Amino acid sequence: MTVYLVGAGPGDGDLLTVRAANLLQRAHVIVRDRLIDSSVLGYISPRAVIYDVGKRAGESNTQSSINDLLVELASSHDTVVRLKGGDPFVFGRGGEEILALRAAGVAYEVVPGLSSALAGPLAAGIPVTHRGVSRGVAIVSARGEGGELTDFRRLSRTGLTLVILMGIENRRVIVSQLIDGGLDATTPVAVVEGAWTSQQRTTRAELSALGSLDVRSPAVIVVGDVASFDLRSLSVRDVVAR
Amino acid sequence: MTVYLVGAGPGDGDLLTVRAANLLQRAHVIVRDRLIDSSVLGYISPRAVIYDVGKRAGESNTQSSINDLLVELASSHDTVVRLKGGDPFVFGRGGEEILALRAAGVAYEVVPGLSSALAGPLAAGIPVTHRGVSRGVAIVSARGEGGELTDFRRLSRTGLTLVILMGIENRRVIVSQLIDGGLDATTPVAVVEGAWTSQQRTTRAELSALGSLDVRSPAVIVVGDVASFDLRSLSVRDVVAR
Repeated sequence: MTVYLVGAGPGDGDLLTVRAANLLQRAHVIVRDRLIDSSVLGYISPRAVIYDVGKRAGESNTQSSINDLLVELASSHDTVVRLKGGDPFVFGRGGEEILALRAAGVAYEVVPGLSSALAGPLAAGIPVTHRGVSRGVAIVSARGEGGELTDFRRLSRTGLTLVILMGIENRRVIVSQLIDGGLDATTPVAVVEGAWTSQQRTTRAELSALGSLDVRSPAVIVVGDVASFDLRSLSVRDVVAR
Repeated sequence: MTVYLVGAGPGDGDLLTVRAANLLQRAHVIVRDRLIDSSVLGYISPRAVIYDVGKRAGESNTQSSINDLLVELASSHDTVVRLKGGDPFVFGRGGEEILALRAAGVAYEVVPGLSSALAGPLAAGIPVTHRGVSRGVAIVSARGEGGELTDFRRLSRTGLTLVILMGIENRRVIVSQLIDGGLDATTPVAVVEGAWTSQQRTTRAELSALGSLDVRSPAVIVVGDVASFDLRSLSVRDVVAR
């Protein structure tokens, strides 16, 4: 009778919250997005019924069928988990699902998750803020729900680290708008593909070269001086060598 | 022999990551910040030795003594947890501690946590992004490490939701800079005090009234149209009343 909108975090099951892990273990029904890692799915009870409702960007019709499904499932099950990649309120469209649940009088609870917008850079050893380098971060989706591109000129002079989601496809336009708006073409950038999964790969370059990098979605793009940092763990060999 | 820089999340112990909870349970030594909630501290083994190293904004000397302490503890203990509020890389100065550990050849690992910059608004039912309302969020600290104020004029025309940390004290200046830079004085704002603790309180107003609100640190300020949203769980009574 309650729908839990649960953030699955960036990938690695160890990065679920304690609350999310407990809910996955006891849920009778799970409604999940695409792109959720197997180490997260491992927490789900073998007796749970799983609905796959993955949708691609731009398929806005599907959102209303997801809303309807949640309302319907809540009428016949005690604990329904709506499992969303990252955090439900950071590009997760959790707000839309909540408005539908409210309209139908269904009880719900939101469980935040680690957003890949912050955990993605961290996986590559990039601190989005760092003393004397960056005192803030702007997180932005490259495309709106209708597919229209965000205006990056307005984001070029904030002085903040810029984290761009869903920007791989339009990266040439993004680069030209940022430079057009006043950002230095030599600003460091990093592309983190598949953060927190076994396929993770980081590519670093200058802003002007971002358009020609061989990178694929899903990936997070980081623009700003911190993008040249790599604070990942020293390997055992690094430590022994000292 | 390993120092784990662990994000404690926004307060509630249920919002620790699974990895963080496991590390707290098995750590021999914990080096913790101020303002970490008792529900988080409940995960710590009763046999662990705890160091309190809380520091206030502007006390930059203390950071180097924390760095020295971590290096010293790593030489004599297997598992040292450096427990930081929120996320170690979002205003957590985790990067500085890592650079000190590296310089000393100490092995380390970073465990991300939920940043209060995102989880704070969520606790008040505010989605930092929402279809058709906001397609991004800028997270910024009101003051630099030396105490100097951030220039908010540059952040007034991004079109993003603005989340301001450590801004309570200087909120009058922030308001005048934002309006000066072109942001509408009637833009919704919300102040979330003590998010995810039993003292949580949310105050909503228009931007022009932010300066005169009766609010205290620690708090997160949200500026933008989403600040008027309240998507918190319906109470049982709300549901029954329908």
